Amino acid sequence: MNVRELLGKDRFARLLGIELLEVSEGKAISKMEIRDEHLNGVDIAQGGAIFTLADFTLAAAANSHGTVAVVINANINFIKAASKGMLYAKASETSRTSRIATYVVDITNTDGVLIAEYHGTAYRRGETF
Amino acid sequence: MNVRELLGKDRFARLLGIELLEVSEGKAISKMEIRDEHLNGVDIAQGGAIFTLADFTLAAAANSHGTVAVVINANINFIKAASKGMLYAKASETSRTSRIATYVVDITNTDGVLIAEYHGTAYRRGETF
Amino acid sequence: MNVRELLGKDRFARLLGIELLEVSEGKAISKMEIRDEHLNGVDIAQGGAIFTLADFTLAAAANSHGTVAVVINANINFIKAASKGMLYAKASETSRTSRIATYVVDITNTDGVLIAEYHGTAYRRGETF
Amino acid sequence: MNVRELLGKDRFARLLGIELLEVSEGKAISKMEIRDEHLNGVDIAQGGAIFTLADFTLAAAANSHGTVAVVINANINFIKAASKGMLYAKASETSRTSRIATYVVDITNTDGVLIAEYHGTAYRRGETF
Repeated sequence: MNVRELLGKDRFARLLGIELLEVSEGKAISKMEIRDEHLNGVDIAQGGAIFTLADFTLAAAANSHGTVAVVINANINFIKAASKGMLYAKASETSRTSRIATYVVDITNTDGVLIAEYHGTAYRRGETF
Repeated sequence: MNVRELLGKDRFARLLGIELLEVSEGKAISKMEIRDEHLNGVDIAQGGAIFTLADFTLAAAANSHGTVAVVINANINFIKAASKGMLYAKASETSRTSRIATYVVDITNTDGVLIAEYHGTAYRRGETF
Repeated sequence: MNVRELLGKDRFARLLGIELLEVSEGKAISKMEIRDEHLNGVDIAQGGAIFTLADFTLAAAANSHGTVAVVINANINFIKAASKGMLYAKASETSRTSRIATYVVDITNTDGVLIAEYHGTAYRRGETF
Repeated sequence: MNVRELLGKDRFARLLGIELLEVSEGKAISKMEIRDEHLNGVDIAQGGAIFTLADFTLAAAANSHGTVAVVINANINFIKAASKGMLYAKASETSRTSRIATYVVDITNTDGVLIAEYHGTAYRRGETF
């Protein structure tokens, strides 16, 4: 199985309509169109929907090396509310040892405005998938 | 509108099957049954699904005072994988000033085992909802 | 070497006047008196001084099991400014596997008021010290 | 008082030997030479010393607009141990509204190797200093 197949099996990402656009060593880009079902009580995209887009994109980048990596810590800043249109997530690896790797994920709207910043730490379990 | 009505309008929480059990001043409890559609490529609950349960529960606690509060920062530790059964989130306010409040949310399974720990910072916008 | 000896060799903690009060399996308590040299430009204890007290206390708790553990991620909420008097840090382990452990550290003043909340993730390297 | 004078009054930064190199709108660069008194029990720079360098640099960037900003949340990944030589911190503002601003601070050694990544959220109190 390759990383695209692994991510293709993510049913939660599928439920949300997240699409993986690009994945290469330590990098990935995804998109998600904000739907009515992503909105919270004040009619903006729920933090969890934005988090999921970021987390999924990090997972693509973190698993791009061919071995299983799982997120153990994530920190997200919600910067600007978004209520419609497309969101893009771009993940980049900022460090990697045999066991631990770190990633930054920027979430932007179609105008390139920063919606959220996500920073994650992954534990690399070592086995292949 | 009261806080239960506000949270009841959260379509993303509804999509995931999240149910608000209790809410009082600075506190809230919710639950979510892990469904097949919450799973990721390695058949465990996607981080975003767990995050959403926590974030929703924090939102209930943070908006319990009758004025709008939005999460600006969230930090989550994913401690143990979960693939089925019920998850519970319990949010407690740890500090509150006129503008900023902080919360801790524990996510546990039916056996009371800690699945994730979420810590959030909310900005209190001041207006009523 | 035991954990008290390990922490006793921490020259930075000594520079700041941090004192380890208690350490047991997964738990530790420390204190630090705020001195003029801990203050920042607006005459309150610098965030780094408070962070150090928390980080040192976590290190005691994380190394209490007899093998080396290092902090890989820390998240801190600064809740209330402090400009004088004693600060106390109390660390508790919230989870532990063979490689990863998580801790919460509450920093309070002499009146028991919460000054900061610190949450840390440690990587357990396995070797003894 | 300008931002350089404000930061010049930071006694804790002075104790650690931190020097502000550059500050402009939303940006700042600082340095700190690792001394024996910055080391912990396993002879590497204590996390609190590295945190302080980052936090101080963020404070310079956050207060560069002429009004008081205080860090309310900070998240730091410790990536690589450092035991001697110079450390550099470079802070950049990633978002700013009237009340909330976010910053990323990279800490590198003289070879440009990433030692730590710090992400902070500041609350802008509005008053001038």
